[in-house]
Amino acid sequence: MRHQVTGFSNPLVKELRALRDKKHRRRQGRFLAEGLRLLLEGLDCGHVPDTLVLASGRDHHPRMAELEDAVVRAGGRVVETSPDILARITGKDNPQAVAGAYREFPRPLAALDRDAAPLWLVAHELRDPGNLGTMLRTGDATGAGGLILIGDCVDPFSVEAVRASMGAIFTQAVALAGWTEFHDWLRHGHGQLVAASLREAVHYREAPYAAPCFLLIGNESRGLPQEVEAACDLRVTMPMRGRADSLNAAIAAAVLAYEVRARIG
Amino acid sequence: MRHQVTGFSNPLVKELRALRDKKHRRRQGRFLAEGLRLLLEGLDCGHVPDTLVLASGRDHHPRMAELEDAVVRAGGRVVETSPDILARITGKDNPQAVAGAYREFPRPLAALDRDAAPLWLVAHELRDPGNLGTMLRTGDATGAGGLILIGDCVDPFSVEAVRASMGAIFTQAVALAGWTEFHDWLRHGHGQLVAASLREAVHYREAPYAAPCFLLIGNESRGLPQEVEAACDLRVTMPMRGRADSLNAAIAAAVLAYEVRARIG
Repeated sequence: MRHQVTGFSNPLVKELRALRDKKHRRRQGRFLAEGLRLLLEGLDCGHVPDTLVLASGRDHHPRMAELEDAVVRAGGRVVETSPDILARITGKDNPQAVAGAYREFPRPLAALDRDAAPLWLVAHELRDPGNLGTMLRTGDATGAGGLILIGDCVDPFSVEAVRASMGAIFTQAVALAGWTEFHDWLRHGHGQLVAASLREAVHYREAPYAAPCFLLIGNESRGLPQEVEAACDLRVTMPMRGRADSLNAAIAAAVLAYEVRARIG
Repeated sequence: MRHQVTGFSNPLVKELRALRDKKHRRRQGRFLAEGLRLLLEGLDCGHVPDTLVLASGRDHHPRMAELEDAVVRAGGRVVETSPDILARITGKDNPQAVAGAYREFPRPLAALDRDAAPLWLVAHELRDPGNLGTMLRTGDATGAGGLILIGDCVDPFSVEAVRASMGAIFTQAVALAGWTEFHDWLRHGHGQLVAASLREAVHYREAPYAAPCFLLIGNESRGLPQEVEAACDLRVTMPMRGRADSLNAAIAAAVLAYEVRARIG
């Protein structure tokens, strides 16, 4: 059965809208994703929203009924509302016709199987949700096992990060850890830790990558702390041929991730 | 002499704030850049703002006086205001301590010297200002000659694009053209047109790139129209190892740009 929601002040609208705020996401342990494409990606990976919101006047899509059925079977809510109210919930001027609220699912480091993939992306104090989402998307494209977020990173379940991931939030494992915790976990098994470095380092096309390769990307303004770089097995650098001295963090991650995969297969 | 601006309703505040809007940028032929780093990048490339806005209470920087002098010598205005008012102008919660308004400087295609660089980035109907700015930044890093924007692209002089370029708006040539105009220009000289393609194409690590290489990236949702791809000398594709069927446009541009530069030097 579909609930109808017609007012901006409906408690459900407030509850979902609050998920745009990190504090409320933490409290509820839930996050928002929008767009049929993302929600179907989630469904195909076994993620069903506890609340599905449909805008009236949306185009017909053959898989919409499948999504709705899955929500109902899992005991979730299906809500129909106006495009205006959906826009209010997602905070986007041109909202998608559908959105869903999900339980968050970060994994502890201990639950990662490092041999499940030859490549893992690791971000240190990444601050931009677009960069984080883009790294998830690149991780999916390069067959990475997932994204490990070290220290004070932006929330991977923010609306912007989920949006930029284009569905990869559902396909990539996401783990959060402190640096020491990560380093201990890594060194209690095999794995090569590779830093994207601005300092003197091996040219990225000539570096001896080895699987499982953990590719470590630093903060957007500060890069990696020196002691973190020093703890890596390999520091690689990309030529900078212009006036700029750095690349966008998600760009550096992608160029290196594609290089690693081209070299270690 | 520094003008003091203390009120939100000051006409200068309104004039500069209006530059966040495309219509007003077009009308004034000017754009906004923020942050000392960007402004110094501009200065080093010969771009001096006609109006320089400084927030009170900013940290001392040895090159600030140099920037201020350059503005005064060029007959521009230097304005001191509060951090709040600067935030109102740039629309950023944590504004930089300095911003400048510049004359726009897109170049006509005919003014580009295609042999000035082995690589040029070309974007077709690119919609996201962050992607555009990031492509400029990547163009700088890979020694591209500039960015050619085809068709209905987002404004390269938007605040978001300028911000994401991290100063490369000042170092990279930017040209706007229709597809036919660009194609005519390109074919009246030498140059290889390479499409980043999702369709059947040559593996990007095995493609025979040649300078000057024009790397063409499509719209974020639709990619390139088939007839545009068909007009290219080469269509290259990157392996997609996950569930996603595409990369972020700026990411695809960067992986290919680095590949081209590694191969044609």
